[in-house]
Amino acid sequence: MASNCSIGLLVSKDTTDIELALSKAESENYYFIVAPISKPSFKRVLDQTKELGGDFETWQDRPAFQRQDLLLNSTDISNRVLGVFSDWLDLDSLDDHIRTCSEIAFKQEAEWASHIGLKGVIFPKIGPEVHNTARMLNSVSGTVNSLFCVRVKDTCWKDWNRLRTLTGHTNQKIRVALELTSELAKDELLDIWLAEPLGEIIIPSELFIYNDKGYPVLKKAHQHFLKKVLRKMEPDVILTEFSEDLQSLAADYIGFLSRRLPELNEVEKFASGYFDSLQMPLQPLADNLENQTYETFERDPIKYQQYERAVYQALVDRVEYSSDIVTTIMVVGAGRGPLVNCCLRAAEKSLRKIHVYALEKNPNAFVTLQNAKAEQWGDKVTLVFADMRKWKPESKCDILVSELLGSFGDNELSPECLDGAQKFLKDDGISIPASYDTFIAPMASNRLFNNVSEYKSLASFETPYVVMFRQFCLLASPEELWTFEHPNKKNIPKDGDPLNNCHNQRYNRAEFLVKHDTIMHGFAGYFDCKLYGDTHISIHPDTHSPDMFSWFPIFFPVQTPIQITKNSIVTAHFWRLSDKQKVWYEWSVTINNKDGEESYVSSLHNPGGRSYYVGL
Amino acid sequence: MASNCSIGLLVSKDTTDIELALSKAESENYYFIVAPISKPSFKRVLDQTKELGGDFETWQDRPAFQRQDLLLNSTDISNRVLGVFSDWLDLDSLDDHIRTCSEIAFKQEAEWASHIGLKGVIFPKIGPEVHNTARMLNSVSGTVNSLFCVRVKDTCWKDWNRLRTLTGHTNQKIRVALELTSELAKDELLDIWLAEPLGEIIIPSELFIYNDKGYPVLKKAHQHFLKKVLRKMEPDVILTEFSEDLQSLAADYIGFLSRRLPELNEVEKFASGYFDSLQMPLQPLADNLENQTYETFERDPIKYQQYERAVYQALVDRVEYSSDIVTTIMVVGAGRGPLVNCCLRAAEKSLRKIHVYALEKNPNAFVTLQNAKAEQWGDKVTLVFADMRKWKPESKCDILVSELLGSFGDNELSPECLDGAQKFLKDDGISIPASYDTFIAPMASNRLFNNVSEYKSLASFETPYVVMFRQFCLLASPEELWTFEHPNKKNIPKDGDPLNNCHNQRYNRAEFLVKHDTIMHGFAGYFDCKLYGDTHISIHPDTHSPDMFSWFPIFFPVQTPIQITKNSIVTAHFWRLSDKQKVWYEWSVTINNKDGEESYVSSLHNPGGRSYYVGL
Repeated sequence: MASNCSIGLLVSKDTTDIELALSKAESENYYFIVAPISKPSFKRVLDQTKELGGDFETWQDRPAFQRQDLLLNSTDISNRVLGVFSDWLDLDSLDDHIRTCSEIAFKQEAEWASHIGLKGVIFPKIGPEVHNTARMLNSVSGTVNSLFCVRVKDTCWKDWNRLRTLTGHTNQKIRVALELTSELAKDELLDIWLAEPLGEIIIPSELFIYNDKGYPVLKKAHQHFLKKVLRKMEPDVILTEFSEDLQSLAADYIGFLSRRLPELNEVEKFASGYFDSLQMPLQPLADNLENQTYETFERDPIKYQQYERAVYQALVDRVEYSSDIVTTIMVVGAGRGPLVNCCLRAAEKSLRKIHVYALEKNPNAFVTLQNAKAEQWGDKVTLVFADMRKWKPESKCDILVSELLGSFGDNELSPECLDGAQKFLKDDGISIPASYDTFIAPMASNRLFNNVSEYKSLASFETPYVVMFRQFCLLASPEELWTFEHPNKKNIPKDGDPLNNCHNQRYNRAEFLVKHDTIMHGFAGYFDCKLYGDTHISIHPDTHSPDMFSWFPIFFPVQTPIQITKNSIVTAHFWRLSDKQKVWYEWSVTINNKDGEESYVSSLHNPGGRSYYVGL
Repeated sequence: MASNCSIGLLVSKDTTDIELALSKAESENYYFIVAPISKPSFKRVLDQTKELGGDFETWQDRPAFQRQDLLLNSTDISNRVLGVFSDWLDLDSLDDHIRTCSEIAFKQEAEWASHIGLKGVIFPKIGPEVHNTARMLNSVSGTVNSLFCVRVKDTCWKDWNRLRTLTGHTNQKIRVALELTSELAKDELLDIWLAEPLGEIIIPSELFIYNDKGYPVLKKAHQHFLKKVLRKMEPDVILTEFSEDLQSLAADYIGFLSRRLPELNEVEKFASGYFDSLQMPLQPLADNLENQTYETFERDPIKYQQYERAVYQALVDRVEYSSDIVTTIMVVGAGRGPLVNCCLRAAEKSLRKIHVYALEKNPNAFVTLQNAKAEQWGDKVTLVFADMRKWKPESKCDILVSELLGSFGDNELSPECLDGAQKFLKDDGISIPASYDTFIAPMASNRLFNNVSEYKSLASFETPYVVMFRQFCLLASPEELWTFEHPNKKNIPKDGDPLNNCHNQRYNRAEFLVKHDTIMHGFAGYFDCKLYGDTHISIHPDTHSPDMFSWFPIFFPVQTPIQITKNSIVTAHFWRLSDKQKVWYEWSVTINNKDGEESYVSSLHNPGGRSYYVGL
């Protein structure tokens, strides 16, 4: 990623000539400046209003600026300036007079900023008492166009969270201007900012140290965090004033850092454009995939390597070298044939003889299979146009190969499909995959919460989504929920179909220790699948198959953001349930605080599959 | 209240003949019996299912009772029996087999209960681990008609709360069958049950003691709570089996208690039929009241006594005995004239001379005023048809009398109206009322939460309602929010109208210590109004004017029920805000746990008056 970030300079509140300040900053390699909307003289309104009469009545009733009070006084500068509200505003004062005047002045500055077309205005500071500030920001953001960028120190996430929670979580006009502090919060605390709507990073000049040449640079910890944030959030960077000669060097240094961010990996390149966007999971049983979808997933550089390796190992284990035995392999859900090719390559490499049956229910994909057979495969492959749950084969196979996994492992109904297909398999036959485990972890992401909220329905909070996470924070390491194994020897009559689907239902709890104050928006879901022996494919963050892009993680939202105090235990309850027509998940969350007291219980999400299910 | 409650007998699970049990219980003065749906033999299904084949497949796939397993086997008995689920069901077992079979058997029993027309079925016990039980109750309650009555001990409110929260708070098919324990929870813990959907009270026979005659009676504490519950919730009472000869005496005793509940007071009599129902506050400025509304409120036995007393005191303080001075009183918002009559009676009793101006803006009420003048008042009263905010009187008055209060004090815009009217008042004149204080207290009420939920809109959770509370629990004593005083000497120009309404805006916080684990559904709001001197009218619970029924309290809901751990501080933030067209309230809640950690912040309710306002 070699794009420059936009770098701004926060000028002193004693600045009197904005044009001059702008041209100076531009000459020092800053793209924009950050300056107060009004001059210190505007504070006058606080005092005047103490007495009844004259200016007070006029101002309080019809607040208007006198031109000499304004620093930002022209529309011409609007695309090169971020405004700053007056720092004497005290919206949470318990003195009625000060609070009321601050409210009027705040509204007046916000409306002026919007009038001259400023993109954003920085709200200079918030403290723990923020209720009326939140109310005013929320109220005024509804009528002005400028964004409100709330300046918050990296160690003060709770203050930001309080303000944002009061405004209802989804006000996208209010975002964070994050000020880095010299000590910098601990890594795990810092990472919560990756889940927040960061618009700007403010780096005060005191944070810079000087290298051997006397150039201003950042300490390693600041560099590290800044790079991470630049890569994931693409914020503007704001510096405060340096002594003359260092001002442009500091800007150059930040520009240099922003051009040296790590390259995107394969998965990120593939996902670019999809970051944090919600996709409905595929329903391959109910719907037929489109050609483009097959094509995209066939390009995965890793998945089919792993399948080929698994088939190779299985063949080597099952059949002696130089044997004449022909191993029958059935590929169920062959699509356009990539797994058939894997099997053929594995046979060739292992010098084992095989015959492949390729089973497919999608009539469109089946045409591609016919072409492949005519042009490449010939007699080595037999094509079968059928649903694997219903086909009756003439003889059984040695190895059953399928690729039916979803992001949550079983969520595209692999268990139900393979229940039907395993009657094709000999008693000692091998299923590839052999098993898959499902994992979850609690997570925060303001962006995902907002994306779900935009659907404006309860159902949208009870639906899992496939998402390439970027602006998010895992609150604890993933824990395992459940496993499916194939072939499944329990509860399924030999040569028959299961009477019911009870054996594919699952229920489990997983506990997570969350060490810091935070907020939770849902769960990230992953799978780790054993294909055969030691050959896995995985999207679990700790064991992710490098560069495999076929699966993004899955996101299970919760209906309401959940506030968590440090050292709480988050307990997730997850169910995989089914009836005759469908399979669905339900989930709930319980929080116990550090004393073990139960401090929160959610409602059950998606009861009876009312909002989301996968059709059988 | 002299109605009998319905008394039932819980029979042993070894009962084999339901008809016999019924006729015996009826002969012992019980109205119904409580009995297991199925016999202990039904537990068989747990064991059978351990092996594959035979009965298992049949039962798990198509669960049906064998007739000898059923104790409740006929529709004939349905109106005299409550069922009980099998006590071996273990819906939260981590053993997949036991849990799955329990789920199937639970559903089977519930469907049978509904089939034979049982009104309710008791779920015999719940523990702390209740997630899957909650899921099953919720799921099955959607398809059967019977109510599910969850048996919970009075000391185990948290277990009930967990279950109810998981089911989403509003499932009205699930309610509490409250079992009293011999120790009985402390009063403040017990009272939370008054906010819950209590269907039945279960009193085990061990709880009875024996009086001098050897008759079974309850201890004072149990008597006290039972009477309170019978009066407010009207539950059925269920006793467990006694030795032969005491069984009917115990039933007679409960019947005796239920016939000796305290009489309703005047307010309750007036309110009967309105308990816990949500009424929109009046908007007397925007709407004209109906004749019936005037008539109802004129019947209040206390309010006009207090006004008469206040005017009497003001006259005595202001004018010397036997003086010839004529005191001018203006009644602003005279309605059909009750305050005019108060003034005339006060003058007569105090032997002071007065002249009354009666101002009214409602043309319909003004007709009644004209009749009163013609028939009774004559020259002593001058009628003025005008809005008090606009009328220009020829001379000023000594006493300004108004009755413009709402349940929250200022919520029917008394401050704004009197701002306009006070220019009629001499510099040393008296306003009756002189001031009013507004109070709030956090409260729980499952019933009110359900009533609000039925509107199915966010707006309904951001609207205050006038409510005569009955099934509710105050979580702490009320605290004062703010005060209005009249005449208002600040910010209002003499002889003029206020330039803006800033001085009638209010913002305050109130803190409440909540000593026990509980849930919060909103705030109860009250006023205490000083009319003159020591004469008050109040609906504050501690100072409520006896028998005054003109105002019920006001209820401010919160959007989501808030779970509170013991010894937390609930901080309420309330705003009274206005613009040129309207006045509205906003409110939010913050919870700090016993360690002072902020564990919950709500969003701001009703921002900008989006859901509720009072028109100016």
